[in-house]
Amino acid sequence: MQITSHDAIKAELRRNADAINSALDARLRRCTGTPPSLLTAMRYSLEAGGKRLRPALVLWCAALCKGKPETALPAALAVECVHTFSLIHDDLPAIDNDDLRRGRPTSHKQFGEALAILAGDALLTLAFEILACDVADAEMSRELSKELASATGSAGLIGGEVADIEGERMPPSAGLVAEIHAAKTARLIQASCRLGAIAARAKPDVLAAVGEYGHRLGMAFQASDDLLDVLGSGAIMGKAVQKDGTAGKQTYPRAVGVEESRRLAEAAARSAVDAIRPLGPEARLLEDLACFVIEREA
Amino acid sequence: MQITSHDAIKAELRRNADAINSALDARLRRCTGTPPSLLTAMRYSLEAGGKRLRPALVLWCAALCKGKPETALPAALAVECVHTFSLIHDDLPAIDNDDLRRGRPTSHKQFGEALAILAGDALLTLAFEILACDVADAEMSRELSKELASATGSAGLIGGEVADIEGERMPPSAGLVAEIHAAKTARLIQASCRLGAIAARAKPDVLAAVGEYGHRLGMAFQASDDLLDVLGSGAIMGKAVQKDGTAGKQTYPRAVGVEESRRLAEAAARSAVDAIRPLGPEARLLEDLACFVIEREA
Repeated sequence: MQITSHDAIKAELRRNADAINSALDARLRRCTGTPPSLLTAMRYSLEAGGKRLRPALVLWCAALCKGKPETALPAALAVECVHTFSLIHDDLPAIDNDDLRRGRPTSHKQFGEALAILAGDALLTLAFEILACDVADAEMSRELSKELASATGSAGLIGGEVADIEGERMPPSAGLVAEIHAAKTARLIQASCRLGAIAARAKPDVLAAVGEYGHRLGMAFQASDDLLDVLGSGAIMGKAVQKDGTAGKQTYPRAVGVEESRRLAEAAARSAVDAIRPLGPEARLLEDLACFVIEREA
Repeated sequence: MQITSHDAIKAELRRNADAINSALDARLRRCTGTPPSLLTAMRYSLEAGGKRLRPALVLWCAALCKGKPETALPAALAVECVHTFSLIHDDLPAIDNDDLRRGRPTSHKQFGEALAILAGDALLTLAFEILACDVADAEMSRELSKELASATGSAGLIGGEVADIEGERMPPSAGLVAEIHAAKTARLIQASCRLGAIAARAKPDVLAAVGEYGHRLGMAFQASDDLLDVLGSGAIMGKAVQKDGTAGKQTYPRAVGVEESRRLAEAAARSAVDAIRPLGPEARLLEDLACFVIEREA
């Protein structure tokens, strides 16, 4: 696998993040009738920054499938709402009990637990409201909603969070790690790619290739996240590191060691590239992204 | 307002509850890939009983608008999933901190806080998955999803919960009580009625009448709930009573006293009947229901 310039990817992600941030701000302005404190808490987490990886995947996969960015934008915003909801709830004292996220106090530290729970709930609901209200074509709206609900629900991200918690009571196992990563992280990253392709009305074989890329990218992303928790800098990450081991989390470094973890992350990234390469030279950005996610520092 | 036999309404509600319970069970069997513990927690709250008032309203309003019950059934299940999600999260220690619900330990008492939070999240997501997957017509699926998201989100039920919590720090005020009741309770009851009418492809004026009925019924329902908290029996209610006053909740009894509260509940029920009566003799069941909600003991 050729390691390309990460600067180009970072620049693309930044450009994308600017567009997403403006669109999120505009969408939140339409949440009239929302209690000001709730809107503040929703904004606090939604505007905390981050790479906006998932909405970038929606828009880039839509572009790869020759779709218009404006058609894919609602799905890009919706997936970021779901991602942010999941961060708020995961950070709660009863779940991962994190005080710091993206370099700032977590939602419950800033606003108290009640408002944090409800801000998460509101963002999850907003995701489906965006797909129902802001997508012009009804059949597309329904397909996007189906994909996002399936990726988020009891067999997706939320189910993965349960498996993650229950995994803390089990001996480290590479198979279990893969299962948890697939549901908790890779499913929503896969959905981001598929949402973009659906918004571009991609043919079934293209949708399948894009979905396979998304799954493998998600696996590479989470494997590298496990490594960053062990080896990364808390200052660069903006959150506590070396927490997974203490919490008894199922991670690759605990299950198979650091070196083998790095090998697994690289293999997943390479297989993601393999999945998307058949789509031609326009897939180059997504190929580079697969290299980037396992080399990043945060 | 003529007080009709409550036995007939109770029998209809029971018949409806049986149908809803079977359909919920069948739908949950399709939640494959869900961790067993999560599915158990989802079932525990969803199958705890209750009157199934909201799905009854979906089906009865659909029938009133000459719709087929099977077309309205997905919306009936979805609204019960949202209602159950809201009960689980409202009961959490950080919010209302309730130990008992429908005569059984609340979700977090039974399964711990983490699983309770995630079971609520999963039920909220399932509601939108049901509307996306189980409604045959795409445009209808989208309209139902729009209505449910708007009723549930930051300007609906979830926003109302925030207002409810914040109201605890304010002096009792009838205006504030009405505002909280409208968002926290009446909006989802209104949505239940509107979902049934949408599923039956009701004309705009009928949809408006049914929606107005739902709002007023919801206001009557919550006003009578406030009264039951003061005067009702915990044994019949299956939850702690006389809690609202201690918690400093914004309720009608605290704001205007018991007698005036009863008058307000009756006036709301009467105005609900006024809203639905123009739809003819078929609306009789819904008229009777409006009387029932302010006379019930649980």
